[in-house]
Amino acid sequence: MIEAGIIGGTGYTGLELIRLLLMHPRVNISIVTSRRYKGKKISDVNPHLFPFIELDYEDVAIKEVADRSDIVFLAVPHGSAMEYVPELMESGSRVIDLSADYRLKRADYERVYLREHKDKEERDAVYGLTELHPEIADPDTDIALVANPGCYPTGAILAVAPLVRAGIVKVKVKQVVIDSKSGISGAGAEPSASSHFPNLAENIVPYQITAHRHVAEMRKELQVNLSFTPHVIPSIRGILTTAHVFLDADSHGFKMMHEEIEEIYREFYSGKRFIRLRKLLSSLSLSAVRGTNFCDIGFEIEKGSNRIVVISAIDNLVKGGSGQAIQNMNAIFGLDEGEGLWFPGLVP
Amino acid sequence: MIEAGIIGGTGYTGLELIRLLLMHPRVNISIVTSRRYKGKKISDVNPHLFPFIELDYEDVAIKEVADRSDIVFLAVPHGSAMEYVPELMESGSRVIDLSADYRLKRADYERVYLREHKDKEERDAVYGLTELHPEIADPDTDIALVANPGCYPTGAILAVAPLVRAGIVKVKVKQVVIDSKSGISGAGAEPSASSHFPNLAENIVPYQITAHRHVAEMRKELQVNLSFTPHVIPSIRGILTTAHVFLDADSHGFKMMHEEIEEIYREFYSGKRFIRLRKLLSSLSLSAVRGTNFCDIGFEIEKGSNRIVVISAIDNLVKGGSGQAIQNMNAIFGLDEGEGLWFPGLVP
Amino acid sequence: MIEAGIIGGTGYTGLELIRLLLMHPRVNISIVTSRRYKGKKISDVNPHLFPFIELDYEDVAIKEVADRSDIVFLAVPHGSAMEYVPELMESGSRVIDLSADYRLKRADYERVYLREHKDKEERDAVYGLTELHPEIADPDTDIALVANPGCYPTGAILAVAPLVRAGIVKVKVKQVVIDSKSGISGAGAEPSASSHFPNLAENIVPYQITAHRHVAEMRKELQVNLSFTPHVIPSIRGILTTAHVFLDADSHGFKMMHEEIEEIYREFYSGKRFIRLRKLLSSLSLSAVRGTNFCDIGFEIEKGSNRIVVISAIDNLVKGGSGQAIQNMNAIFGLDEGEGLWFPGLVP
Amino acid sequence: MIEAGIIGGTGYTGLELIRLLLMHPRVNISIVTSRRYKGKKISDVNPHLFPFIELDYEDVAIKEVADRSDIVFLAVPHGSAMEYVPELMESGSRVIDLSADYRLKRADYERVYLREHKDKEERDAVYGLTELHPEIADPDTDIALVANPGCYPTGAILAVAPLVRAGIVKVKVKQVVIDSKSGISGAGAEPSASSHFPNLAENIVPYQITAHRHVAEMRKELQVNLSFTPHVIPSIRGILTTAHVFLDADSHGFKMMHEEIEEIYREFYSGKRFIRLRKLLSSLSLSAVRGTNFCDIGFEIEKGSNRIVVISAIDNLVKGGSGQAIQNMNAIFGLDEGEGLWFPGLVP
Repeated sequence: MIEAGIIGGTGYTGLELIRLLLMHPRVNISIVTSRRYKGKKISDVNPHLFPFIELDYEDVAIKEVADRSDIVFLAVPHGSAMEYVPELMESGSRVIDLSADYRLKRADYERVYLREHKDKEERDAVYGLTELHPEIADPDTDIALVANPGCYPTGAILAVAPLVRAGIVKVKVKQVVIDSKSGISGAGAEPSASSHFPNLAENIVPYQITAHRHVAEMRKELQVNLSFTPHVIPSIRGILTTAHVFLDADSHGFKMMHEEIEEIYREFYSGKRFIRLRKLLSSLSLSAVRGTNFCDIGFEIEKGSNRIVVISAIDNLVKGGSGQAIQNMNAIFGLDEGEGLWFPGLVP
Repeated sequence: MIEAGIIGGTGYTGLELIRLLLMHPRVNISIVTSRRYKGKKISDVNPHLFPFIELDYEDVAIKEVADRSDIVFLAVPHGSAMEYVPELMESGSRVIDLSADYRLKRADYERVYLREHKDKEERDAVYGLTELHPEIADPDTDIALVANPGCYPTGAILAVAPLVRAGIVKVKVKQVVIDSKSGISGAGAEPSASSHFPNLAENIVPYQITAHRHVAEMRKELQVNLSFTPHVIPSIRGILTTAHVFLDADSHGFKMMHEEIEEIYREFYSGKRFIRLRKLLSSLSLSAVRGTNFCDIGFEIEKGSNRIVVISAIDNLVKGGSGQAIQNMNAIFGLDEGEGLWFPGLVP
Repeated sequence: MIEAGIIGGTGYTGLELIRLLLMHPRVNISIVTSRRYKGKKISDVNPHLFPFIELDYEDVAIKEVADRSDIVFLAVPHGSAMEYVPELMESGSRVIDLSADYRLKRADYERVYLREHKDKEERDAVYGLTELHPEIADPDTDIALVANPGCYPTGAILAVAPLVRAGIVKVKVKQVVIDSKSGISGAGAEPSASSHFPNLAENIVPYQITAHRHVAEMRKELQVNLSFTPHVIPSIRGILTTAHVFLDADSHGFKMMHEEIEEIYREFYSGKRFIRLRKLLSSLSLSAVRGTNFCDIGFEIEKGSNRIVVISAIDNLVKGGSGQAIQNMNAIFGLDEGEGLWFPGLVP
Repeated sequence: MIEAGIIGGTGYTGLELIRLLLMHPRVNISIVTSRRYKGKKISDVNPHLFPFIELDYEDVAIKEVADRSDIVFLAVPHGSAMEYVPELMESGSRVIDLSADYRLKRADYERVYLREHKDKEERDAVYGLTELHPEIADPDTDIALVANPGCYPTGAILAVAPLVRAGIVKVKVKQVVIDSKSGISGAGAEPSASSHFPNLAENIVPYQITAHRHVAEMRKELQVNLSFTPHVIPSIRGILTTAHVFLDADSHGFKMMHEEIEEIYREFYSGKRFIRLRKLLSSLSLSAVRGTNFCDIGFEIEKGSNRIVVISAIDNLVKGGSGQAIQNMNAIFGLDEGEGLWFPGLVP
C-alpha cells in the first residue's frame, strides 16, 4: 500500500483527496493535518466521511509527515505550499502540490501573483496535466515535485492543446478566447459574499474578467495568443470551458473539415482514458462528469468562418484538482492511471 | 460473478442500478431491456456511462432475460411489474421488483392503487427493507421475490421503527406525522410540468398532501397511527423525512430521556452499517448521503412535551431505490451487505 | 406624503422596506440609518436600488430620526430594537418594529429568548398581523408601536387561525403540527455556513427542530396545542407552511365536510385582500407569492381521519416581513391596505 | 387608457406582458387570446395573476382583436406571427411582434430560419431596440410594426453598440466574440428535456454553439465581425452577455484608456434611463436586473492587450422581451419611456 499524507485536510481540495483516496485500492491515508481541527476526528468534522476514516486531524512537524508518507499531497492555500516544499524535498518526499506555487517559474510567479516567492530555490516541478506530460509516468524519470494544474487551466488547456500542438503541420491557431463557467466550490469551503446563496442562486457572476491569474498557466502550456474570462454559476461542482478558437485564414483556406479536426483530437488523445471525445454536443455538459476524473470534449466548426468552438467539461474538484492529483500519483508509482478513479458520474 | 438482468433500463431507477452494479465487484450486468431504445448502445443514450458498459439495450422475451440472469431487477413503472413477475417466477428467477406492485397484499394493492392487480396469484414477496427484514439474508430462507420499498417509506419507516417496535416495553407511540421533502428525481426521467425548472426552482411544492399511496406501506410495516404529507424540493436527489412522533403520556410520564431513546435506536440498528445515527443534528441533511446507500438518522425530544422529532436523510435513488435493491441482492446471495455500496457521499 | 424613516437599512428586511416604499405612492423615505455604511450612497452599496434613491446612509441620534419621520421602521437585529424604542416612544414617534423584541410580554420574552429585556417598561405593542388585528386600522385607536410578526408565525398563524378561532361553535382543534420550509434569505444578508451555496444547494436543512423561538408567537396568538419544526430549503425567498391540524373526534364526528371548512376560511378572511384561498392545491406553492404581500392558503381533509392539512405560502421578506410592516403602516394612516403592495408575483 | 390586445397569452412572453401591463397606469388589457385555454379565466390558469385580471382567454378573429385594441402585442411562436401581421396591418393596427418574424428582411429571414416567410409583403418593421432606434419615439414617424428584438441580441447589441458605432472616429472594432448565458425561461413554458430540473440543476448547457439564429440580428444591427455562442444556466431568468471585443491595433495604438471608453458609453447612452453603466464590475450580475427592464453594462480593458471585455445583464423576459415591448409601446404613444416599467429589481 502507498502511504499518502495530506497537508491541509479541511478545504474542499483536501476533503476530495480523502474521499477519493478512501476508495483507492492501493493507498492508505497515513496522516491528515489541520491546525484548526487538530485532535478532532476527521469524520466528526466531516460527517460524510463516517465511518470510512478513523484518523484524527494532526498538527505535526513537516518532517514527520514526510517520514510517515510515501507521497505527500499539499492541499493548502496558494502561498502556503512554498513554506512546506523545501523541507519536504529535503526529506526526500515525493510531493504533489495542489496550490499554484510551483506552476510557474519563480520570476513569473512573482510577476503574476504579485508577491514574493518564499522558496529561494527554482524547483524542477513538472506540470501535472497528466495527458500532456507523459514524463510523469515514465519509469526512467524520477518525479519529486508535481505542480498540479489549476482548475480553469485544466479545462482550457485540454480543450485547446490538440489544435495548438497540431499547429505546424495542419492548422495555425491565431487566437483563442477562453470563456469559463465554474461551480462555486472552486472558491473554497469558507463562506463569503460570493458563495452566499441569495447572491449566487438565480445568477451568474463574472469576475477578474481580464486579469485572472490562471491565464499565465494556460499561456505557458499552450504558447498561443489567448484571452481568458471566468464566471461563477449557481452550481456546486464543475467547469464548463467554451474555447473560441480562431484559425489563421492561410492555414487551411477556411476549409478545415470536421473530420480532420476530429482526427487531430482522436490522435492527440489516443490512449488517454480520462478524455472522452463527444460527437454529440448534446452529451456535453457538467452532468456526465459530476464526481469523476473525466474531461469531456466536443467541438463545432462555424460554417463560413475561421472559428472553431471547443467545449470541455470537468469536475473542478476531481479532474480540476484532487482527482488529477491522484492520477499523477498513479503515474508516478507506475499504477494503472485509472486506479481508484474509474467510475461513472453521478447522474442525475 | 452474479449475472444481473435489468428490465427497464432507461428510467432513473434503472440507470442508477446500472451505475451502481458497474462498480460492484461480484456482479456482471447480463442484459438491460428497453423497448424505446432497443438496439442502441446504452452508453450512447446515457453518455455518463461511457465507456463502462458495452451492452446495447435489448427487447427480448422475459424467458430469455430469466435464462441469462441469476437475478432480475424490475425497474419498470408501477403497474407493469405485475406483467413480468408471473413468468419470471415460473422460470425460477430471483426477482427484485423496484415498483410498488408487490409491496402490499393484492387486495390492499387494489384498494390503494385503485386498479386491478393483474397477477392472479398472491405472491409471497418479502418487503425489502433490509434492516427490518433479516430473513432476506437468512441462508435457510429462499427468497424468490423482493418487493423493494418505496422511497418515502424507506426514509419514514427507518426513522420511526425503533420507537414503534420498542413500544410494548419502553415507550408507546400514540401518533406519527410524517412530513417528507423529496428531490425531483423521484418523479422520474420524463419531463413534466412539475419537473420544469422554472416551476421548481425557488420553490417547494406540496402534493397529494393527505392521500399519497406510500402511506399504505408505512402503516403496514409500522402498525401505528400515522399521517403522511410529501413535498418536492428544488434538489435532484434526496429525501429528508421529518417524523413528528407523539408518545402516549402514560408510557413514560413525559419524561423520556435523550439517552434512553438513543439507546433504543443504537440497539435496534446494531450491526446495520447503512444506518448512521447522528448525535449532532447539524450533520443531518441530504449532503452527507448524496449518492450513497446510507440512511442518516437523528432526533430531538421537545422539552416539556410528548413530541420527539426524528429526522432521516436518504438518497432517494440509492437507499430509497436502486442501492437498497442491491443491498437486498447482496443479502440474498450471502455477500457482505456493503459490497459495491460502501463509499462516502459526494460532498460538497 | 408620509415621511418614513428606516433604522437599519442594510439587512434584507431594511432593503426590502426600501424597495417597497420606493414604489409606494404616498410615502417618502426620509432617512435610512447604518453605522457600517454611514456616508455612503445607498444605491452604491445596493446597486439594484439605483437610481431610485438619492439618499446616503446616515448615523444620527434617534431623536433626529424621530423628528424627520412620521413613522419609523426598526429593521435591526433582535435585541437591538429595545434600545431604540423607549426614546422613539418618548419622541412621540409611531414605530413598526420588525424585530422580535415586542412580540411577547417582557417576562415571556426573557423566558423564550433567554436574555434580559432592556426596555424596563411593558409597552402596549399591537401584534401586527393585520388580518387578525383589525384594531390597527381602527381610526379611533391610536397605535404607537406595532410588533411586526415573525416570518414563520405569519405563515403558520394565518394558515390555522380560522380553524382555531372557529373552535367553540364548529370544530375543536386538538393539536397542530407546524412543519415549515423557508428560503435562506430569512437567515439574513451576512454570509454563514448555513447560507454557503455548496452547503445548501441540493439539500434541505432542519434546524432548531423542537425549540425554535417563533413557536411562542404562534402559541400566544392561537392558544392551541401546537408544535413547530422549521427547515431551510435551497431557495432565496418564501416560506411554505404545512400545518397538520388534528380535530377533536367529538367536535364533528370526524365528518367535517370540505365545504364547511372552506366556508370557515372564506368567512374568516372575508375582505382580507392579501389572503388568497386556493381551491386547487396545485396552485399552492412559493412561485405565485414571489415578491408579493400575499398569503396563499389551501387545505385538504384526509379521508377517514381527523386530520386537515393546511398549506400556506408567503414571501418571507414581504408578507413575512417588510410588506406586512407596510400593510400595517397603511392601516395606521388610514390608507387602502394594498397601497404600494398591490401587484402580482414574479412568475416565472 | 390605451387598449392593449395580446395574441398568445399563455407563454412566458405573453404572461410577462400581462404581469407588466397590469401595473401600467395608462393601459387597459382589452383581450388576451389562447386557443388552448379559450373560455378559461386567465387567473385560473395562472394563479399568480389573481385577482388582478378578470378576463377569460378568448379565441376570436384577428379582425376583432384589432378592433378592440389600440395596439396589439404578438406573443406567439416564431413562424406564427407572420400569419397574423398582414391582417392586423390591413386593419390599421399598431403591432409589436415579439417573435423573430419581422426582425430580418424576408430574404434574410428565409436564409437564416430555413423556412418560407409566409407574409408575401416586405413590411417596413422597425427593430425595437428602443435605445438605438429613437425614431420609434419620434412623433413625426408613424410606427405601424415593431419587430421586438430577440433576448440574446438585446443583451449583446446594447453591450457592444457604443464601441462599434463610435468606430469611425475613435476606435475600430476588429472582432467581437459574444458568449451568452441565459436562464431557462428563454426556452419557454413547455416542459422539455432541456428544462427538466435534473438535467439543468448543477449544470450549464451550451447549445447551437456556432449556429444560433440570433446572430443574424446582431450582425445586422452592429455591422461588425461577430461570433456568438449561447449557454443555458440553472436560473429561471436573466441573460448575462460576455462580449470579448478586439480593437484594431492601429485604431488606438493599444492604448485606449478606461476613461475614454467610459466616455464613449456615457455619451452613447446619455438620457437612456434603462441603461445603467456600472463602474464596479462587482455590481454586475443578474440579481440587480431581476424582474426589471434595465440593462446593466460594465467593461474592463485587458492590460497590454487589444481586448475589452464588456458585460451586460438583462432580465430576458423583461428587457429581453415583454418589458422592451412595453418600452416600445410607450415610445409610440408618446408616453414617458419608464411608464409602468420604473421599479427596482427583486433583490435578493
